Amino acid sequence: MIVLAALLLVVVLTCVPYLGTIAFAQAPAAADASPIFGVTIPQGYKQWELIAPAEEAAPLDELRAVLGNQTAIDAYQAGKLPFPDGTILVKRAWKRKQSPEFASATVPGAATTVQVMVKDSKKYAATGGWGFGRFINGKPVDEAQHRTCWGCHEARAKSRDYVFTRLAP
Amino acid sequence: MIVLAALLLVVVLTCVPYLGTIAFAQAPAAADASPIFGVTIPQGYKQWELIAPAEEAAPLDELRAVLGNQTAIDAYQAGKLPFPDGTILVKRAWKRKQSPEFASATVPGAATTVQVMVKDSKKYAATGGWGFGRFINGKPVDEAQHRTCWGCHEARAKSRDYVFTRLAP
Repeated sequence: MIVLAALLLVVVLTCVPYLGTIAFAQAPAAADASPIFGVTIPQGYKQWELIAPAEEAAPLDELRAVLGNQTAIDAYQAGKLPFPDGTILVKRAWKRKQSPEFASATVPGAATTVQVMVKDSKKYAATGGWGFGRFINGKPVDEAQHRTCWGCHEARAKSRDYVFTRLAP
Repeated sequence: MIVLAALLLVVVLTCVPYLGTIAFAQAPAAADASPIFGVTIPQGYKQWELIAPAEEAAPLDELRAVLGNQTAIDAYQAGKLPFPDGTILVKRAWKRKQSPEFASATVPGAATTVQVMVKDSKKYAATGGWGFGRFINGKPVDEAQHRTCWGCHEARAKSRDYVFTRLAP
């Protein structure tokens, strides 16, 4: 009986940190997912290939760069529309800042938002197959802001599967 | 004697296409290298990680994106100066173009130049360890243009190992 109790204790002590790790790993993931869509910032996205840079005038006054995972890049290069399920696009954005070395050059200032589009034609059937996430400092913005994504993409980019960014030549 | 002549003919006919291939493979490489520095456009550079986008006012009127190989990215992330030998930076550039969908957005138009910096502290000792290449449509521009690279980098970016671009936050 004592042996059994000791064994049980060993099992519990062995498992508790593990269960703790699971809980810890899951909790932030849920908190970091966008409202409505449940989209998160994909791991390793900064290593993804550049699709195109862009610039946004005032009041946003930003420099931007849209990156894509391999599924996205393959679809762009093949000129394939609609984008296949699994496509992920990430837009990085920074405040525009005067270069300290060149009067004519503008460079990235502080990071502003990270914006993510995930293609899953079943899960996001009501929004053209796309799930949206908009993040500031790694945290999703509120539901009201996320409600604005689809309307704009639907109205202005329907002919290109609701994606604004073209592959830079 | 006839047998030997026939053998020689076979050898020559076998080798000629091969020699032709070698000549063909080498000739474009030399033609595609920058004057003075012998820098070429690195293979696969479009897959490299983004260091930062930038914008250049008129008359150049460009959007730009600087990419780096893994050696470059590692040095940037570690804040390591000078950059180690093997570092390669590539700047892609496009004419600025009004987005057809958004009045406030500017996107890449036609590609203009690809500009390359290669770190080799021995080979390029006379120019701060950097070799330069400036390419239009895959072909290097002339020697006179390449003579302007170093003076500008030396005058304006000496404190950061002659590199203008900072890692975007």
